[in-house]
Amino acid sequence: MKALMLVCDGIADRPVRELKGKTPLEVARKQNMDALASRGITGILDPIAPGIRVGSDTTHLALLGYNPYEVYTGRGPFEAAGVGLKLRQGDIAFRCNFATVDENLVVLDRRAGRISKGTDKLARAINKIKIPGAEIIFKESVAHRGVLILRGKKLSHKVSDSDPHVAGEKVRKVKALDESPEARRTASILNAFSEDVHKVLREQNGNANMLLLRGCGAAPKLKSFREKYGISGACMATTGIIKGIARLAGMEVVEAKTSYDLRIKQGLKILKNYDFLLINIKEPDEASHDHDARRKVQLIEEIDRALKPLLQFSRENYVLLLSDHTTSLSYGDHTGDSVPVVLCGPEVRADDVKKFDERSTAKGGLCRIRGQDLMPLLLDLMNRSEKFGA
Amino acid sequence: MKALMLVCDGIADRPVRELKGKTPLEVARKQNMDALASRGITGILDPIAPGIRVGSDTTHLALLGYNPYEVYTGRGPFEAAGVGLKLRQGDIAFRCNFATVDENLVVLDRRAGRISKGTDKLARAINKIKIPGAEIIFKESVAHRGVLILRGKKLSHKVSDSDPHVAGEKVRKVKALDESPEARRTASILNAFSEDVHKVLREQNGNANMLLLRGCGAAPKLKSFREKYGISGACMATTGIIKGIARLAGMEVVEAKTSYDLRIKQGLKILKNYDFLLINIKEPDEASHDHDARRKVQLIEEIDRALKPLLQFSRENYVLLLSDHTTSLSYGDHTGDSVPVVLCGPEVRADDVKKFDERSTAKGGLCRIRGQDLMPLLLDLMNRSEKFGA
Repeated sequence: MKALMLVCDGIADRPVRELKGKTPLEVARKQNMDALASRGITGILDPIAPGIRVGSDTTHLALLGYNPYEVYTGRGPFEAAGVGLKLRQGDIAFRCNFATVDENLVVLDRRAGRISKGTDKLARAINKIKIPGAEIIFKESVAHRGVLILRGKKLSHKVSDSDPHVAGEKVRKVKALDESPEARRTASILNAFSEDVHKVLREQNGNANMLLLRGCGAAPKLKSFREKYGISGACMATTGIIKGIARLAGMEVVEAKTSYDLRIKQGLKILKNYDFLLINIKEPDEASHDHDARRKVQLIEEIDRALKPLLQFSRENYVLLLSDHTTSLSYGDHTGDSVPVVLCGPEVRADDVKKFDERSTAKGGLCRIRGQDLMPLLLDLMNRSEKFGA
Repeated sequence: MKALMLVCDGIADRPVRELKGKTPLEVARKQNMDALASRGITGILDPIAPGIRVGSDTTHLALLGYNPYEVYTGRGPFEAAGVGLKLRQGDIAFRCNFATVDENLVVLDRRAGRISKGTDKLARAINKIKIPGAEIIFKESVAHRGVLILRGKKLSHKVSDSDPHVAGEKVRKVKALDESPEARRTASILNAFSEDVHKVLREQNGNANMLLLRGCGAAPKLKSFREKYGISGACMATTGIIKGIARLAGMEVVEAKTSYDLRIKQGLKILKNYDFLLINIKEPDEASHDHDARRKVQLIEEIDRALKPLLQFSRENYVLLLSDHTTSLSYGDHTGDSVPVVLCGPEVRADDVKKFDERSTAKGGLCRIRGQDLMPLLLDLMNRSEKFGA
């Protein structure tokens, strides 16, 4: 028996004026999602807890059964794992932007003219930098993005960003965020690195003459999926952070095809070799960030058309369909609202909810659950969970 | 005002093919249970947390308001209390089987031919065994079963079973399960005991020539019911483990009559002298372990017929009717699904649910609660709870 967790990123929404007080899920035509709801048990889910606004990183940790308050200190390590860097215990990691600064270190462009080529060469130069007290490991990512790992003894993730987050301001000095000698030491290593990286990049004579650091976090200790649940897991995602979380959880990361249709078909193939597959579909979230209600409705309908094979699959296996968080079209960002969830498969206590949307599933048989409840519920239905007691 | 908690063990189920996709509670004719649901407030309950598979021991601890993660290390101490042995802080306890082994200590019969007589005599012989470093306290129980307490300084429950759990394998050496000197010391005491008990039992010339040890746990520290809640409690159960939990919680244990009818009538009598009574009815669980859907439905109907007096009783008092966990007919064991619960009494906010089953009560006014929520809810309705704050 296999399980597919299909996360439609940010597909949940608040009622939208533009859609006459309905949500995109409430107005979209989506017969396959509704068929899953009709045949499954539904409910609403708080990614972490009611009202808590989450990132896609923290919520995916919770959906996979990890406590984000224990394992999440910042986005850096997950981005690092997402680009394929191997983290070690004690490492700290940052997300980085290649940027253009003037002679006074005032940021002119936080994306170095949306640089897209030659960052591999810049990365080689950066990796030659030697700073006493820590090893520098840098890898370029998509476009102007990159990841930095600092490796050494007595480092702390309690340090501030060098990224001022807006153009027109100076690159910031990294500061210790607590009183520990480790944080002070780490800040001074990073400030020395910032000086050196500016020198090294200037010599390359491109738009990118600086590296801005943000999202510092410590390498988390995640029990692997196999160790935690005794099952094998894979993940299909297009964003680095989700891939990174999956890698750190010891899951296999598979590249996503372009069309939703091919992704679902490929997913079902992958499940021949794994017990569990997480598919993250990122686009609905982006439509909400862009305040584009029409696009969001359209995407829901496009995704829905690809889900037909899941109706057959869920006769013998389990399918979880949900949103990882609400992304509000009006607010243009994640909100802390609950999300709809449906769990479909051979032995669920199917309820009488017929539609997959925010308000319909609130009447479902799961009532209100939390992100971290999903994996125990799923393992139990698969008869793969350990009994506590006798 | 009194309260009766009626736990129908494992009465909840998953939808069963044999019952055309319904659960036993959904097909059984049970007018008294449904009358309680009609007049009460209903909901679904996770014994510990969503999806967590529980034993009857851990879930009863939770239903009585104890945190099983804090007080439960193994079944032994509860079984010991169940047969009437008094545990002391620092004791460790095991469940035991009288078994038959050959000259190489290979287990021929884990139940010593289902021995049923003369185990009291064997127990007297066992209690004469002297092992340096710990006192041996043994008591025979039903049929081939018994309980062993080890009493002494610096004992640890972090030791393995000597029971190989299948016939045809050798009696295992007890091993320390952690690095502590206490665990190593305890293991060596138990291995010396195993040698001696084999010698002593051989001299008795019966089928039972060995004792197999399992389910080691440390004597838990349970605040008594009176101390925790300020009320008096009693328990009527047929299984040792439930009696044991009740005894360790300082509740009075009363023997159960045979028929359900007499049990309920006797229960209401007992409640003249106690504030709270837990009744556990074990049989539905056994029907599920046996994959016997018809028997389970029949048992539900039999139990239901006995519940008529509760309709009158719940006019002035509170009745909680629930399953302690789901026992799946198809899986033949406990699962982590939620269970239906109804709370009936003078001041509950009665909802419009009319049936006591898994799916109907999911629409009830209690929504989704947890095992450990029940005692606070009950005490509060009885106006017996302390105010937190002013």
